[in-house]
Amino acid sequence: MKRIGVLTGGGDCPGLNAVLRAVVKTADNDYDVKVIGFNDGYEGLIENRYRELSNRDVSGILTRGGTILGTSNRADPFRYPVLQGEEYVYLDRSTQAVRNFEALGLDALVAIGGDGTMAASAGMMELGLPIVGVPKTIDNDLVGTDVTFGFDSAVVTATDAIDKIHTTAQSHHRVMIVEVMGRYAGWLALSSGLAGGGDIILIPEFPYDIEAVCNAVKERNAAGKRFSIVVVGEGAHPAGGEMVVDRRIETSPDAIRLGGVSRQVAAQIEGLTNLECRVTILGHLLRGGSPTAFDRILATRYGTEAVHMVMRGEMGQMVAMKGSNIGSTPMSEVAGKLRTVTPDHPLVKAALSLGVCVGLPMGVPIEESLAEEATT
Amino acid sequence: MKRIGVLTGGGDCPGLNAVLRAVVKTADNDYDVKVIGFNDGYEGLIENRYRELSNRDVSGILTRGGTILGTSNRADPFRYPVLQGEEYVYLDRSTQAVRNFEALGLDALVAIGGDGTMAASAGMMELGLPIVGVPKTIDNDLVGTDVTFGFDSAVVTATDAIDKIHTTAQSHHRVMIVEVMGRYAGWLALSSGLAGGGDIILIPEFPYDIEAVCNAVKERNAAGKRFSIVVVGEGAHPAGGEMVVDRRIETSPDAIRLGGVSRQVAAQIEGLTNLECRVTILGHLLRGGSPTAFDRILATRYGTEAVHMVMRGEMGQMVAMKGSNIGSTPMSEVAGKLRTVTPDHPLVKAALSLGVCVGLPMGVPIEESLAEEATT
Amino acid sequence: MKRIGVLTGGGDCPGLNAVLRAVVKTADNDYDVKVIGFNDGYEGLIENRYRELSNRDVSGILTRGGTILGTSNRADPFRYPVLQGEEYVYLDRSTQAVRNFEALGLDALVAIGGDGTMAASAGMMELGLPIVGVPKTIDNDLVGTDVTFGFDSAVVTATDAIDKIHTTAQSHHRVMIVEVMGRYAGWLALSSGLAGGGDIILIPEFPYDIEAVCNAVKERNAAGKRFSIVVVGEGAHPAGGEMVVDRRIETSPDAIRLGGVSRQVAAQIEGLTNLECRVTILGHLLRGGSPTAFDRILATRYGTEAVHMVMRGEMGQMVAMKGSNIGSTPMSEVAGKLRTVTPDHPLVKAALSLGVCVGLPMGVPIEESLAEEATT
Amino acid sequence: MKRIGVLTGGGDCPGLNAVLRAVVKTADNDYDVKVIGFNDGYEGLIENRYRELSNRDVSGILTRGGTILGTSNRADPFRYPVLQGEEYVYLDRSTQAVRNFEALGLDALVAIGGDGTMAASAGMMELGLPIVGVPKTIDNDLVGTDVTFGFDSAVVTATDAIDKIHTTAQSHHRVMIVEVMGRYAGWLALSSGLAGGGDIILIPEFPYDIEAVCNAVKERNAAGKRFSIVVVGEGAHPAGGEMVVDRRIETSPDAIRLGGVSRQVAAQIEGLTNLECRVTILGHLLRGGSPTAFDRILATRYGTEAVHMVMRGEMGQMVAMKGSNIGSTPMSEVAGKLRTVTPDHPLVKAALSLGVCVGLPMGVPIEESLAEEATT
Repeated sequence: MKRIGVLTGGGDCPGLNAVLRAVVKTADNDYDVKVIGFNDGYEGLIENRYRELSNRDVSGILTRGGTILGTSNRADPFRYPVLQGEEYVYLDRSTQAVRNFEALGLDALVAIGGDGTMAASAGMMELGLPIVGVPKTIDNDLVGTDVTFGFDSAVVTATDAIDKIHTTAQSHHRVMIVEVMGRYAGWLALSSGLAGGGDIILIPEFPYDIEAVCNAVKERNAAGKRFSIVVVGEGAHPAGGEMVVDRRIETSPDAIRLGGVSRQVAAQIEGLTNLECRVTILGHLLRGGSPTAFDRILATRYGTEAVHMVMRGEMGQMVAMKGSNIGSTPMSEVAGKLRTVTPDHPLVKAALSLGVCVGLPMGVPIEESLAEEATT
Repeated sequence: MKRIGVLTGGGDCPGLNAVLRAVVKTADNDYDVKVIGFNDGYEGLIENRYRELSNRDVSGILTRGGTILGTSNRADPFRYPVLQGEEYVYLDRSTQAVRNFEALGLDALVAIGGDGTMAASAGMMELGLPIVGVPKTIDNDLVGTDVTFGFDSAVVTATDAIDKIHTTAQSHHRVMIVEVMGRYAGWLALSSGLAGGGDIILIPEFPYDIEAVCNAVKERNAAGKRFSIVVVGEGAHPAGGEMVVDRRIETSPDAIRLGGVSRQVAAQIEGLTNLECRVTILGHLLRGGSPTAFDRILATRYGTEAVHMVMRGEMGQMVAMKGSNIGSTPMSEVAGKLRTVTPDHPLVKAALSLGVCVGLPMGVPIEESLAEEATT
Repeated sequence: MKRIGVLTGGGDCPGLNAVLRAVVKTADNDYDVKVIGFNDGYEGLIENRYRELSNRDVSGILTRGGTILGTSNRADPFRYPVLQGEEYVYLDRSTQAVRNFEALGLDALVAIGGDGTMAASAGMMELGLPIVGVPKTIDNDLVGTDVTFGFDSAVVTATDAIDKIHTTAQSHHRVMIVEVMGRYAGWLALSSGLAGGGDIILIPEFPYDIEAVCNAVKERNAAGKRFSIVVVGEGAHPAGGEMVVDRRIETSPDAIRLGGVSRQVAAQIEGLTNLECRVTILGHLLRGGSPTAFDRILATRYGTEAVHMVMRGEMGQMVAMKGSNIGSTPMSEVAGKLRTVTPDHPLVKAALSLGVCVGLPMGVPIEESLAEEATT
Repeated sequence: MKRIGVLTGGGDCPGLNAVLRAVVKTADNDYDVKVIGFNDGYEGLIENRYRELSNRDVSGILTRGGTILGTSNRADPFRYPVLQGEEYVYLDRSTQAVRNFEALGLDALVAIGGDGTMAASAGMMELGLPIVGVPKTIDNDLVGTDVTFGFDSAVVTATDAIDKIHTTAQSHHRVMIVEVMGRYAGWLALSSGLAGGGDIILIPEFPYDIEAVCNAVKERNAAGKRFSIVVVGEGAHPAGGEMVVDRRIETSPDAIRLGGVSRQVAAQIEGLTNLECRVTILGHLLRGGSPTAFDRILATRYGTEAVHMVMRGEMGQMVAMKGSNIGSTPMSEVAGKLRTVTPDHPLVKAALSLGVCVGLPMGVPIEESLAEEATT
């Protein structure tokens, strides 16, 4: 091996730079291998935009959020959006990517990304590109690994926000609703809700019953606690209802639905309890900032191990944490799947033991609540 | 003097507890005077809800956000909202407040609050209540004092958010819009915009020209900077347009206008530049959290001085900072006024020297831009 | 079960209050059991100082460092230090502890603490006290569990300090030495050293070779990096040398040895490289502050599970994390042992791949270096 | 004007990069003037080490601590230390500096630094170099300006440390001693002591009476507060005693006196009160990290104004804050002087009103205590 490529794809998250630093340092230090970084994920591979990454380039980036390579949502070489006139058409640019890869004389590619990047990479593997994956998502909903870097940082940012909201909630005797990311999985809402001492936690996996939510608020009031904190994952939705989330700002103002669910919940609580509600939507804050120590270490381990895997020829695999050991999972097994919160997960059980309302009637087992809803 | 009362009114802000601690400690330490704290601002005085505050009660609260006394938006004893059936009627409860004050045998009242609390206190003074005011607002828009506690904390929270947003903006080559509080005054947007290195700062005082905003974005792009940070005060509005802000969540979903201006700006930028925008609305985050060292010291000085003023009999006055000296201003001069950002303010000039766009055409003096708009 | 006791022993660490909150809330919510909290660890049980802990008592403590119960280094009822005249004598007060426990009609005790508390609790079990343990240490050196709460918080504080030190090191072209806790185990130095991008990491497990350390500094200088960051665990010591750590301030000034190792290392580097060194000793900072989100969640899970274990009658066990699952380990197996860093630990390997110096000659396998020293 | 130089001298502090950014952006944006940055303060001017600073070079540095130009304690061109054999000799290199300045065709120099840099710059002015000064020091002890950037950041770091120490002090019932920088002036100890709720604050200006200190500790204990926080400026010393501070690590271990005063105080308190003490020395932590919002804004204003002053030809002046206005002071008036804490300063008075012990007998006016000592 002489030269390997690296790219960062999908939504950015804290720790990407730490992976890049570890990849470059390990390649240089252990194997004397050069590293080429592609700009903006697969976009850079397709459009042949890249630069060499030396030790100097990655010096000082460990602590910085984001990615020095840039990233892009145009993550799929097989369905690459290209503007034609006023509209996007989707073209297969995978052969172009392979061609550029070969022209650069690369021996392997380290692809850092989430679900979409792993899917694209599994596809590129079939075209002959030797790829090792590194999992990343602030949502922590990737299968095949116990934990992804970026998640701890996002939980910390969300928890810090909930801490701040707490003092104003108490002073004003209000119901404060904090919306965090998590369209399909509630890990972020559940973890930050537990860490921030949220009273009610609503996640996509458990369609909520607004009356159960309001009862929880009222019970707190009856017990002399004149405020409540509701932590909502953006994909949460009422039993029988639809998800209202959409972070994309459309050009038509009517289409703007930022903070859809949390404002719906707020309006309903105000209507049913006569208490004042306020909404805070953390949105892209959760992607930003310096990675936590935990994420820096995890990202560093991933980056180091990815290079070792490349050198051992373990192509098609994604680095993964399993318990406290580092291992790997085939990228093809990761693509298109989602790790979601189950009713019997320890964090859910802990929440229930503390008396936290997860949006379902208290006392009834969650599985039963969910089953009942499903039949309705 | 034997006993003095204290209350915290209006929107909460970091540092209220630091004032309470300083009031209680100074009263005890320097004068051996007892302190009675009313719950929820003037509401507590009207409804006779209070408790004695000892040294022990204020131990450990210096670092905590919010107010241990609680606060309320029902700040005006002369126009006190009372629910009758389904509707609020506004009653004059000022005599009840005076009666309770006298029944408790209090010698003076320290009223901590913003514009509304100062106005109410000036009114209560006329009914014979001996009051000293302590200014508070995260917006820093109170006249009669150079600075209010809570503002530095809010600027820090906003700046920290902008720092976080920066990394994700850069990685994704997006225009990120961060909305901060400030309905009538742009101090918070201007200060955090400068501290966070915002590229465009929109404040209520300078109605913005969306084309000037888009030009600034495009110029950055042309110079190879593929992202921009726009910091928006919630009361910002287009030249000739109206303010769209309303934090209150109405029970009808149509009425929800949270983040009105920032989403409008986002939609317009997307339309005019074809760049992706994302919106983050900090809202009540800015009221929360532990006060900064600056605010703790300022609040402590205010609390200490307020007691000295009470003991010197300087009733009707509000504690104030003038330069680096502590002084005072009659509460009656504060009520109903607003300190806003002027075109020739040093912070505005500094922003312009850095090349920051404040929403007006570059090159044209701000006064001229504003005059032109006024005539249109 | 009707009433259970709880105590916090040994050095304090972030997350103790989160455990207490979870214990009280779970006992109340799931089992309607009352909780009695003893003051200052086993001291309170021996001296019969306690109070009932209600839901209200634990409200708002999740985010606070330290322990509302207080703690004490007088952790061992079998060897309890009592002042007689000018000197301490060590008495067996275990029977008194049992007597008090029985007089209070308690059904079980939850003992939160480290190595010492687990050892004492294992002893008290033999006297018939039904005890469940909860592991705690910022050093993370307890056997029987993968991770203890408090550790992540300490790593974050240390990493934040190293980040701060970085900027001043760079500006002044200095060698900065940061000393963290860790008398017998290097987990904290190793983790914060990795997270903070330390160039040299010295831990108690690998007696350091000062020439190897200086060579690493010189090599960086030769490569144009005119500063180095050295992270030192307080128990680190030169090959063949002794530990010089002692945090206790003795009344004789000569006996003060605070920051012993780091100042020794600094003096040696200055002597051998002619570069300016500066020392920062984090000491008790690492025990303080609000627990991180990670520690709050871990502590909450531990507290919740401890109550479940009590109710299931699993006495003599300590709650433990094993991978991402919660389990348990007999307290007797934990006492008197230490989990230390091994040469083949993944974190050590990652550090080496990045080119970090761990105080041993580069190129030579660590096991070999250590073996060589042992024979010298 | 076509080209101006800039340098950063003396101990680094948060905000230096913010000044550099403002200087470069303002020079470019308002005047189309080029900026040359010298490396390592006057060292770079003397040794002709420099680089051009473009807008791109200062992009992203606003938030970073330290200085991208580097700094040096070799700040005085008139007494420039040069290694000859084993020893340093001091040479006058001022003519070399002037020669390099002229060879580069510079029209003016912006010198950012503290007392030493202002003194050197005043001297260089006399040799004909046109210089504008920008004040900087984390100690805030410069005359001629109300406030220097870096100070607020240092106060925040110290306050955060005291907050952390608080929780462990309370849990362990200990006396915790926190030492901050400040060899000749107590601003940092006084401000962070007030902001952190310190019980005892010792500063260089008020030589302390150890019995008064111990009495304060004992009184707290008697009142049931079983812990105390002592904040010590490094230059504090007992009445009649000498300063023991020396941050420099000498090559002889005996010479190491890091944390001299705080360890002396600790030993004395342990001896006189029989309470456990612990020492934390913040040292260089206080120079590090991202500047606070306050310091970023102040540094930005200074940088912007320095360029305006250069263009207006106001050479020999130092930018200064006076109240909330920006102004200037002749550099020659700043050199060799020190702004120290006076007994009647508002912060001292506020501390006394709260019952804080400043190391002198309570009840006796400070001026009297000091006078008495002086005569002893």
